[in-house]
Amino acid sequence: MTGIREFTFTAGELEIYWEDASHSRLQALWLRDHCQMPSSRDPKNGQRLFDITDIPADTAIRRASLEGDRLVIEFTPDGHRSEFELDWLYRNCYCLNLQHDDRSEIHKILWHGKSFSDKLPRQRYADFCKRRRNKLAALRAVRDYGFVLLEAVPCESGQVLEAIREFGFPRETNYGTLFEVRARIDASNLAFTNLGLGCHLDNPYRDPVPGVQLLHCLESSAEGGESVLQDGFMAARILREESPQHFATLSRTWINFRFRDATADLRARVPMIEVNDLDEVVKLRYNNRSIDTLKLPSERLQEFYPAYRHLAEILERPDLQLQFKLHAGELLLFDNTRVLHARRAYSAGGTRHLQGAYSDLDGLYSCLNLLESRQ
Amino acid sequence: MTGIREFTFTAGELEIYWEDASHSRLQALWLRDHCQMPSSRDPKNGQRLFDITDIPADTAIRRASLEGDRLVIEFTPDGHRSEFELDWLYRNCYCLNLQHDDRSEIHKILWHGKSFSDKLPRQRYADFCKRRRNKLAALRAVRDYGFVLLEAVPCESGQVLEAIREFGFPRETNYGTLFEVRARIDASNLAFTNLGLGCHLDNPYRDPVPGVQLLHCLESSAEGGESVLQDGFMAARILREESPQHFATLSRTWINFRFRDATADLRARVPMIEVNDLDEVVKLRYNNRSIDTLKLPSERLQEFYPAYRHLAEILERPDLQLQFKLHAGELLLFDNTRVLHARRAYSAGGTRHLQGAYSDLDGLYSCLNLLESRQ
Repeated sequence: MTGIREFTFTAGELEIYWEDASHSRLQALWLRDHCQMPSSRDPKNGQRLFDITDIPADTAIRRASLEGDRLVIEFTPDGHRSEFELDWLYRNCYCLNLQHDDRSEIHKILWHGKSFSDKLPRQRYADFCKRRRNKLAALRAVRDYGFVLLEAVPCESGQVLEAIREFGFPRETNYGTLFEVRARIDASNLAFTNLGLGCHLDNPYRDPVPGVQLLHCLESSAEGGESVLQDGFMAARILREESPQHFATLSRTWINFRFRDATADLRARVPMIEVNDLDEVVKLRYNNRSIDTLKLPSERLQEFYPAYRHLAEILERPDLQLQFKLHAGELLLFDNTRVLHARRAYSAGGTRHLQGAYSDLDGLYSCLNLLESRQ
Repeated sequence: MTGIREFTFTAGELEIYWEDASHSRLQALWLRDHCQMPSSRDPKNGQRLFDITDIPADTAIRRASLEGDRLVIEFTPDGHRSEFELDWLYRNCYCLNLQHDDRSEIHKILWHGKSFSDKLPRQRYADFCKRRRNKLAALRAVRDYGFVLLEAVPCESGQVLEAIREFGFPRETNYGTLFEVRARIDASNLAFTNLGLGCHLDNPYRDPVPGVQLLHCLESSAEGGESVLQDGFMAARILREESPQHFATLSRTWINFRFRDATADLRARVPMIEVNDLDEVVKLRYNNRSIDTLKLPSERLQEFYPAYRHLAEILERPDLQLQFKLHAGELLLFDNTRVLHARRAYSAGGTRHLQGAYSDLDGLYSCLNLLESRQ
């Protein structure tokens, strides 16, 4: 903890000079709004107990004093009194700690096909379930790289749902809570054939899109059928480097995706590359199969196609592709807002049987956050 | 169906003059990419069977001819031949039909507290379950107004999950698949007390946020505890009219929301007002209780607070508020990305018992789309 060297205040602002030579300037209204007293925040869950309109718009600092390790501030015009722990002020000061907490590209480790040599992020399933340290490592791999391989998962039907229960909740959809991936006659979706599938993210036609996908391999005796993964955030970064204009087109052009069969008609209008307010990539949607009729103004259409083609060409570059064969007993757990997956075609002889399921990123990150705070 | 009067083409473009005097200009690459032949699209689900990179970048029209009700186009350089039904071209032409399909404010009917007089959108639950027409009307009310009241729902525990199965899938969270809303000692969330709750949307700290919320009233003998609904899209529209600058600030400033208790640590960095590429509102997040420490640069913080206060003040205007008492056997089904809800405080005597659950908008809209197409 850093101590305080000196503080001063005006009606509008508190200034703190810290012992480590850093300096905070905190606005009166921000301080009032971030009051941590039990009357302002529920001590159990930190929920704020007042509305912004309960605070006078002309809130100012009347007095500030140091009492032990707390700064006591009295506000006008309502006379509210707040005590702030110095340590809290240091950790939460927006001058000292501007880094934002989200899932954007700047918090990730981007990779290409050779990044892992032969050491993919892996955990034994039993360890993942039983040992906090291993679960933490696996979920960090999902956060950092977008995927993890779980090994020695029992080859039992439905096991993929047990795996989800270890970190979150299944997302049931029109494909079921669990879906079978194997060649099927009269398949309603190309995924359920033995054809190769180009790199894609699942369900861009779904809003909200499932953020986590799991594929559990139960049988793998067919020739071919290798899995390919790609870091979509890396592809987006390369696109931005090679053509800021193309990147901007794909992040600013929302398009319609759609999937329709006898039991569902799913539609979403979303950008291929979703960026946050700082223009950092936070989410991708990419699936050539399910782009609906493009109804863009003529001039935007002319911009869109070269940008889309450029991204597609980047995704076809072999150096971005991580290819491996999923064996029986392995389970691939990945971030469906970032990591694209593909499948090579496989022979009609032999069997390839996966069970898949979706989950959401809220539960996975919540589990990860809890594990990290208990370290 | 509109017939064709004349068509012409160049290498880059097809022009159609329709009998209703409208006019289409369709780019060669768009036509090629939208080929509807069975070799290009899966006839069962419309999925595209080729990648954008399978189409030459210099695709152009070599020949076009009319054969019955089809326009036959031959492309260079790959010699690909497509037949388009004239009706399909008319309906899908991006010149004639630019309106986009999404969930934005322009597709909604915005309302204030007096808009419904005493006629809230309502359906009897038995009709909702059994009759296509009634289910369609109820789901259209959710699409158009953001909510519907289901009446005469059996007062049985768990019934809210049966209701979800009528249009979609439950979204399980750390609060369970189903949560009890009644005064509880040692409540981890303010919702589970008898205190009043200001207008809010649920779970802005969750990404993805559950898009549908259901509240099923099982008992209602306490005094007070009235429900209040508000059209958040109307509030956003008023904000934009009164201050385009404040609107822009809230749509461009992403902030952190957070909820933490012993079993969850949920975080999301999102804007209060989410807009699409056309600057139309598509999603709101609003919950004063769960805004995490604001770590914005000083100058952005100074812009943020007046904008946030302005929106909060709009939401406090009584004319926007629709207040009614939820009776036993009623179930409120609403769009949690648009319709804010509040609860007045209620007496400690008597009982108020709701069961709540979340679902997602993908399933609800899919069900609605199917019902509409079968009309």
